[in-house]
Amino acid sequence: MESFADILCIGNELLIGKITNTNAQWLARRITTLGLKVKHIISVGDDVEEISTAVKNALKHKPAFIIVTGGLGPTFDDKTLEGVAKGLSCELEKNDEALKMVEEKYRQYMKDGTIESYELTPHRVKMAMLPKDSKPIHNPEGTAPGVLAEHEGIKLIMLPGVPSEMKAIFDESVAPPIRQVAGNLIFYEASIGLWGVPESELAPFIDQVMHDNPYVYVKSHPKAAEKIPHLELHLSTTSEDAQLARQRVSKALIQISDMAQKKGGKIRPIKALS
Amino acid sequence: MESFADILCIGNELLIGKITNTNAQWLARRITTLGLKVKHIISVGDDVEEISTAVKNALKHKPAFIIVTGGLGPTFDDKTLEGVAKGLSCELEKNDEALKMVEEKYRQYMKDGTIESYELTPHRVKMAMLPKDSKPIHNPEGTAPGVLAEHEGIKLIMLPGVPSEMKAIFDESVAPPIRQVAGNLIFYEASIGLWGVPESELAPFIDQVMHDNPYVYVKSHPKAAEKIPHLELHLSTTSEDAQLARQRVSKALIQISDMAQKKGGKIRPIKALS
Repeated sequence: MESFADILCIGNELLIGKITNTNAQWLARRITTLGLKVKHIISVGDDVEEISTAVKNALKHKPAFIIVTGGLGPTFDDKTLEGVAKGLSCELEKNDEALKMVEEKYRQYMKDGTIESYELTPHRVKMAMLPKDSKPIHNPEGTAPGVLAEHEGIKLIMLPGVPSEMKAIFDESVAPPIRQVAGNLIFYEASIGLWGVPESELAPFIDQVMHDNPYVYVKSHPKAAEKIPHLELHLSTTSEDAQLARQRVSKALIQISDMAQKKGGKIRPIKALS
Repeated sequence: MESFADILCIGNELLIGKITNTNAQWLARRITTLGLKVKHIISVGDDVEEISTAVKNALKHKPAFIIVTGGLGPTFDDKTLEGVAKGLSCELEKNDEALKMVEEKYRQYMKDGTIESYELTPHRVKMAMLPKDSKPIHNPEGTAPGVLAEHEGIKLIMLPGVPSEMKAIFDESVAPPIRQVAGNLIFYEASIGLWGVPESELAPFIDQVMHDNPYVYVKSHPKAAEKIPHLELHLSTTSEDAQLARQRVSKALIQISDMAQKKGGKIRPIKALS
């Protein structure tokens, strides 16, 4: 069965619409370009039961990775470690390696004059209370370590919600194992803008192109309501052979462009990534 | 048990990180300010099985509303109606009222000169193939009608993914029933910016303020890694009494501000909404 990843975002701020979930997009993009498919993105609140249930549900899907973001900090509302432990039916326990990482950070902040004391208060120790048998991951940007827990071959990786910390840990420690699972797969895509052809008139052409190009996925994104016919056509494929991937997308792109132009459409290239 | 809503977003573009999920934020914000809690935000791809499974899982939570966005259009990758029908274990059937709505739109577009023919091609009829016993909802902005399905007292509301259409249908037809379920509840919130106090030093004060103000939720949002101590403190409450809500948040805000200033923190108001 094809390997994939799930993303689990923790934070009431997502559920009250206080912020846009840019972390999910960043992670989804990164994982996709590393060659692995993302199947589910889930957001739940700062609640042990909700986090635990979400973890249990994600485990049932049997992803290769569950990437969890948010809720690793020192305040009462940081409940990810407790929720994940509950989801894995294990206890939290003080992890010496994690505690050493946290202490070193506070010693450094004190040297820098940011804090008054590096005393390991309960709120600071909290960041080193990990689900049993999990491992801390070095955080190059902030205080709370990332955490890796393994469960029946599934890697659960917990990252802080602060974007700079999440990204730094991901690039340093999460991208390599994802790349390893993805193998040599690459994701290739291209987009064109199309004006003047309503989506319902283009639909049968897309069916034809999908039929003629079985490895290419063609998705039309209306940029406005249909009465203003402006679409983005996004074509993508995954392959171990970068040149083959590019050829496949190009062939389909030419075919759909020709069809759209015959219907009076105007085309402008948007971008070709990877 | 408290009523709540789940949000289900359909689209491969979310899973490959092509776009940020601004629809989810808009809906979460709107639903929250209407007084209803959002508990889960789920994104899945354009896949009948995935949509069906997500619907079944959401139904198990027993929300008052499941708001689904995306996948109502005329192209092959618009699979929401089929996925929801499968999730509800019912068939798709041609809905005359929906078909009339679709036909009227195309007659209008033809009058406007946007399309060549208002012929009801299979791709256009597709937008009127609804899960059995569901109802179309007028779309003031675009072609595809919204759809309302009811299942054991749970309202499943399907909206297009094009933001202008989603918002127009929501405001016209979805906000009123949500307000009705929410009753007179209002959500009240305020934020302050806080500089100079690291989150781990503020943590015990937040615990104290939460303890002294049982109706107010205090959440600290680090704006950067802890070595640069800059937080946003967000306080919120839900009440039927707007004045009481404001008083409760203000009291907690004054308490946490005093504590933070005694630790040498500098405070700047960010906003007070509602």
